[in-house]
Amino acid sequence: MAVATDRYVDYRLSLSLVGTVVKYLAAAPLFPVLVAIYYGESVVPFVATSAVMVAVGLLLEQLSDDSDLGHREAFLLVSLSWLVIPILGTVPYLVAGNGVFTGPVAGPVNALFESMSGFTTTGSTVMGSISFDTHSRALLMWRQLSQWLGGMGILVLMVAILPELSVGGAQIMNEEAPGISIEKLTPRIQETARALWKIYVGLTVLAALVYFGLDAVGLGTNMGAYNAVAHALTTLPTGGFSPEGRSVEAFSPAIQWAFVPFMVVAGTNFALFWYALDGRVDKLTGNAEFRSYLAVMGLVTAALTALLFTGLGISGATPNVGTIPGNIEHSLRQATFQVAAIVTTTGYASMDFNSWHPVAQTVLLFAFFLGGSAGSAAGSIKIVRWVLVRKAMYRSLFTSVHPDAVEPVRVGDEAVAEETLRDVFVFIMIFLTLFVVSTVLLYVDSLFVDGIDLTGLQAMSVAIATLGNVGPGFGAVGPMNSFELFSAPAKLYMVFLMWIGRLEILSVLVILTPAYWRS
Amino acid sequence: MAVATDRYVDYRLSLSLVGTVVKYLAAAPLFPVLVAIYYGESVVPFVATSAVMVAVGLLLEQLSDDSDLGHREAFLLVSLSWLVIPILGTVPYLVAGNGVFTGPVAGPVNALFESMSGFTTTGSTVMGSISFDTHSRALLMWRQLSQWLGGMGILVLMVAILPELSVGGAQIMNEEAPGISIEKLTPRIQETARALWKIYVGLTVLAALVYFGLDAVGLGTNMGAYNAVAHALTTLPTGGFSPEGRSVEAFSPAIQWAFVPFMVVAGTNFALFWYALDGRVDKLTGNAEFRSYLAVMGLVTAALTALLFTGLGISGATPNVGTIPGNIEHSLRQATFQVAAIVTTTGYASMDFNSWHPVAQTVLLFAFFLGGSAGSAAGSIKIVRWVLVRKAMYRSLFTSVHPDAVEPVRVGDEAVAEETLRDVFVFIMIFLTLFVVSTVLLYVDSLFVDGIDLTGLQAMSVAIATLGNVGPGFGAVGPMNSFELFSAPAKLYMVFLMWIGRLEILSVLVILTPAYWRS
Ligand SMILES: [K+]
Ligand SMILES: [K+]
Repeated sequence: MAVATDRYVDYRLSLSLVGTVVKYLAAAPLFPVLVAIYYGESVVPFVATSAVMVAVGLLLEQLSDDSDLGHREAFLLVSLSWLVIPILGTVPYLVAGNGVFTGPVAGPVNALFESMSGFTTTGSTVMGSISFDTHSRALLMWRQLSQWLGGMGILVLMVAILPELSVGGAQIMNEEAPGISIEKLTPRIQETARALWKIYVGLTVLAALVYFGLDAVGLGTNMGAYNAVAHALTTLPTGGFSPEGRSVEAFSPAIQWAFVPFMVVAGTNFALFWYALDGRVDKLTGNAEFRSYLAVMGLVTAALTALLFTGLGISGATPNVGTIPGNIEHSLRQATFQVAAIVTTTGYASMDFNSWHPVAQTVLLFAFFLGGSAGSAAGSIKIVRWVLVRKAMYRSLFTSVHPDAVEPVRVGDEAVAEETLRDVFVFIMIFLTLFVVSTVLLYVDSLFVDGIDLTGLQAMSVAIATLGNVGPGFGAVGPMNSFELFSAPAKLYMVFLMWIGRLEILSVLVILTPAYWRS
Repeated sequence: MAVATDRYVDYRLSLSLVGTVVKYLAAAPLFPVLVAIYYGESVVPFVATSAVMVAVGLLLEQLSDDSDLGHREAFLLVSLSWLVIPILGTVPYLVAGNGVFTGPVAGPVNALFESMSGFTTTGSTVMGSISFDTHSRALLMWRQLSQWLGGMGILVLMVAILPELSVGGAQIMNEEAPGISIEKLTPRIQETARALWKIYVGLTVLAALVYFGLDAVGLGTNMGAYNAVAHALTTLPTGGFSPEGRSVEAFSPAIQWAFVPFMVVAGTNFALFWYALDGRVDKLTGNAEFRSYLAVMGLVTAALTALLFTGLGISGATPNVGTIPGNIEHSLRQATFQVAAIVTTTGYASMDFNSWHPVAQTVLLFAFFLGGSAGSAAGSIKIVRWVLVRKAMYRSLFTSVHPDAVEPVRVGDEAVAEETLRDVFVFIMIFLTLFVVSTVLLYVDSLFVDGIDLTGLQAMSVAIATLGNVGPGFGAVGPMNSFELFSAPAKLYMVFLMWIGRLEILSVLVILTPAYWRS
C-alpha cells in the first residue's frame, strides 16, 4: 500500500478521479430511459441526469492529470465519491418535479435523502405514498437501480473496468467494501473486482427469474416482469426499496418465502460464492462467519416465531394480525422473513411489524446491530466482528485464570492480529457512540414535529435504521410509513448517518480529523 | 501475584476463608440491635443473624487450615463471599417475618433479592410499601447497613483487619474493587485497605452531620438523626436504599442539594482523597478520570435541565410536575440530582422520573451505562473505561492515516498497556451482551405477570438497573415503585445480575468456565 505522508493531501487528484467515476456512471440512467420508453413515460429526468453526470465528470477531471494515488488520496476519493454520486442521483427526483414528495420539506432535501438512502442501500424513504399513480415507473426503477449500483460498490465496479484505478485499487476496495478487509481472490485486484461483480449480476438475474417464474407458474400475485426486476435490484444489494407501498406484503406467501434465501445470499460474503463456483464448496460451508451468521439468524428466528405463535409478540390493540397467533406457517414465515430482512439489513417487510408487541420489536431492535457478513452489501456492525468479539471474550476468560498463556485469537486456522481486534473493538464503540448521540438528537428534534410521537424504542430505531443502513424502524418510521415528516436538519443529519454508515465510519471520520490534512 | 496453575483448585481453602470473613461480620448486626433497643423493637432478628453468622463461619473455617491463597482460590474466595454473605443477610428479613414483603412470592426469594440488592449497593427493592408502620426501624437500618458494608468492600475491610488475608490481599482487593485495578497507596496492602476504609468512615460521618445539621438549622424537613444516619449509610456506598417510600423527595430542596456533592464524592476514586488529604490536591484535580467524570455529568445535566425547563422532557399526561417547566431552580435541581444519582449508580430519586417524557428517560437510560469512577463503590461500566475507549478511538483515527505511527494510549503521563485496553473492551462487550440477553429474558418473563406492562425502554431499564447496580428503572420498576411483582425466576435471575455486576463480571464468569477448574 503506497503511503504518502511526506506531502500535502492532493485533493485535486481525488476530485479528478471522482470525475472519472461520475463520467462512466452517466451510463446508468440509460436503464430508466428504456423503462420510460417502454411505458410511454418522460425520458427527460434521466437524459438530464446523464448529461449532468457527463458534464460534472469532465469538469472534475480537469483538476489534475496526475495518477499517483496515495494512501490519503484514496480515502478522499472513496468518501467524496459517496457524497458526489448521491448528490448527482437527486437529479431525476428534482426534474420529475412536483408530486414526487408529499412532505413539508423542500424538494432538494427530500431528493438528497432518497438518493443517499438509495446508493447506501439503506432503504429509508421520504416518499409519503408510493404508487404508480403518483410516480412514474421509470423514476421508481431509478430508485431501485441506485441501490443495486451502491450495493456491490460503485468503486469496486470502477476498479473492475478502469485501468486508472488499478494502482490504489486494493485500498479503494477496502475502504468501500463492508467488513474488515477485502479478500484478494486473484493476483490482480482488477480481476477480483470483476469476479465479484459477475457473481453479483448473476445472482440478481437469478432472483428476477425466480420471482417472475413463481408468478408465471401461478404461485404468485402481482409479480410481473417489472416488479421481478425491481425487487431483484434491491434484494442482492440488501437495499430494501420497493415500488410497492406495502413492500413485500404485496406478494403471495410463496414469493415471500422465495425472498428469504436471496436475502440470506445477499448478506453472505460474495468471495465465498467465488470459491464455491470454483469447486471449493467447503470454503463456504466451513467459513466461521457464514456458520455464525446462519446460527444467529436461526436463534433469533426461533425466538420470534415463539413470540408470534403464542401471541405474546403481537400487540393486543391491533386487529389486522388475527391469523398469526396459533398459525405455525404464518408465524414462521413472518419471523423468518423479518429476521432475514433485518439481520442482512435489507429492510423489506412482509407485514407491518408496527403491529407487533414491543417485546418482539425489542428483539428485532437488537438484531439491527448484527449486520450481515463482511464482503456482502450488508450494513451495520457485521457478523465477523461479533465472531471476533466472542472469541476475544473467551480468551480473556481463559487468560484471567492462566495469565501466562496468552494465545492469539483464531478464526478457522488463522491467527488474528491484535491490531485487527483493536480496530474491531474501536469500530463497535464508535458505532454505538454514534447510535446513542443520534438517538438523542433525532428524538429531541422530533418533539418539534406535529405528527411524530416516538417512544424511546422507536427513537432508537430511527438512529440505527439509518446509521446501520437497515431502512425502516418502528412507529412513525415503520416499514409502511415514511421519514417524510422529519425536519430538514434531521433529514440532513440522517443523510450524514447513512453516508458514514455505508463507509463503515472510519473512512469518513478520518478525513474530518486535522491529522489527516497535516503533512 | 501468586500463580498456582499446577494443581487443583483448593476450594476448601477458599470456603474456609469465607468462614473467617463471615465470623467477623457477625459483629455487624449489633448496630441494628442498638437501634432496636433505642426504639423498643425486637432484637431477635439481629441476634439470630449474628448467631447464624458465627455458627456458619466456624463451620466453614473447619474445612481447611491451609493459608497459602493461590490465584484461583482468591477468585473463588471473592465470588463465594459475595454469595454467602447476602444469603446470610436474609436472616433479619426472614426472622422479622410476615409483613416485610407484600409481594406474591414466598419470603426467601424476596429476602435474597433485598439482601443481594443491599450488599451489592444496587438499591432495587421488592418491598411494596416502605414505612415505619409496617417495618421496624431496626430492620430498615439493617437494610441501609448492608449497603454501607458492601460499598467499600467487605473483603477490603477484612484485608484491613485480618492478617490472614495479607498474602493474597492485593488480588482480593483487585477482584472486589470496581475499576481496572486498585491503586496501592502504601507499601503494605493492609495499610492501603485501612486508609480507604478510614476515608469512607470519615465521609459517612460527615454526610450524616451535614444532613442532620441542615435540618437542625431549619433548612430541612423530616431529617432527624435516624434519617441522617440511614441516608449517610447509603450515600457513600452509592447504594440508594431509603427508609422513606418516596426516597429523597421526602426532604427539602436544601437537603436534596446537599445530597449532590456527597453522591459525587461517593462516585470518585477514594484513593484520590487519600492523596488530597496528604496535601497532593493536584492528584485529585488533575486526574483524567475525575475530570471526565465531572465533565460528563455536567454535559448530561445541561441537556436534562434544558429538557425539563422547556417542558419537552415532561410527559404531557402527568399533572403532578406542574412547577418544573419554566422554573430554573426546580429544573436544575431535578436534573443535577438525578444525573448525579444515576451516573454514580446511587439510584436515589428527588422526584418520580416516571412522570418524565420518554425523551428525558432515554437520556437517563444511556447515562445508566456510564458508571462512577474506578476505586469508588459505583457500579456499571465506569468512567475510566470510557476514557480509555475514547483515547483508543482517537488513536485509531490517527493511525489509519499514519499507519506507521502506532503509539501507546496515554492517560496523564502513563502509557496504558495494550492488554489493559483489551480487557476494557472485552469487559464492555460482555456487559452489553448481558444487558441485551437480560432485557429480552426479563421482558418475556414480565409478559406473564399481571400488573407489569413494560415498554421497550422500561424493559431495558430493568436489566441495566440491576446489572449496573443502579437500583430503580422506569415504569413498573420506577423509583417510587418496586420489583415485587416479578416472578420468582426473574427475581433470582436479577440476584445473579446484581452479583455478577458488583464483581464486574469476570471474577464470577471465570469460576463458571471449565478452564478454571482444570489443572
Ligand atoms: K437496507
Ligand atoms: K445503587
